[in-house]
Amino acid sequence: MHAKPVNLTEALATFDDVYSPRVVARMNDYDVRIAHAAGDHMWHVHEDTDEFFLVLDGRFEIALRAADGTETTVVLHRGDTFVVPKGTEHKPSAPEGASILMFEPTGTLSTGDRHEGEIPDHIDSTTGHGLTAG
Amino acid sequence: MHAKPVNLTEALATFDDVYSPRVVARMNDYDVRIAHAAGDHMWHVHEDTDEFFLVLDGRFEIALRAADGTETTVVLHRGDTFVVPKGTEHKPSAPEGASILMFEPTGTLSTGDRHEGEIPDHIDSTTGHGLTAG
Repeated sequence: MHAKPVNLTEALATFDDVYSPRVVARMNDYDVRIAHAAGDHMWHVHEDTDEFFLVLDGRFEIALRAADGTETTVVLHRGDTFVVPKGTEHKPSAPEGASILMFEPTGTLSTGDRHEGEIPDHIDSTTGHGLTAG
Repeated sequence: MHAKPVNLTEALATFDDVYSPRVVARMNDYDVRIAHAAGDHMWHVHEDTDEFFLVLDGRFEIALRAADGTETTVVLHRGDTFVVPKGTEHKPSAPEGASILMFEPTGTLSTGDRHEGEIPDHIDSTTGHGLTAG
């Protein structure tokens, strides 16, 4: 009749991959995704959608680049929420590791519509994997 | 340039009202809302939207009524996520209290498009309040 509940802690324990989001729930045409974070993600931008972050554990930073090129960094800890507005270039990082939850439209690519430089090996360019994909 | 981070624990501490959701973030045309829960909510339905729940603390139950009238109850604990599909009659409850996060389209009424019976005093029929509304 309906999907089963998914526990975030248990779901995070099913995979180790970093910057490789798993979809824990779908609602309307949106995904709820979780990911482990470690080290730097890359500068990228989602032109058509905001992106919501909730830090589940650790310290998670998001560098933001304003239209004039000015960069600021938002530092987030467990329980902190933040929305990166659409069209805003941003670079997540987690120097000591973190785990995060994200809301975003189904199909949103983890490396954005545009990104800066080559995608390094430790970043998975994906629209999200199923939880059992491991 | 951008909104400030909001910490969920701190935001929950700014109000005591039960079943009176606060909007902690907006992304695209969606709200991220938090609420304290205690006792029974009411049977209601959102005809046009799914509703995502994440339990932040306590035990939160959602009774669901199938099209044939069969009722089942999903019991959720801290860290559990669950999506109530659109068009599904449901009744949240938290016998010993809980706090929750919800993700739903801006404008979604907390008591749904239809509800069963009169709205009791302990339930706020709202599309969500701002955090500073107290």
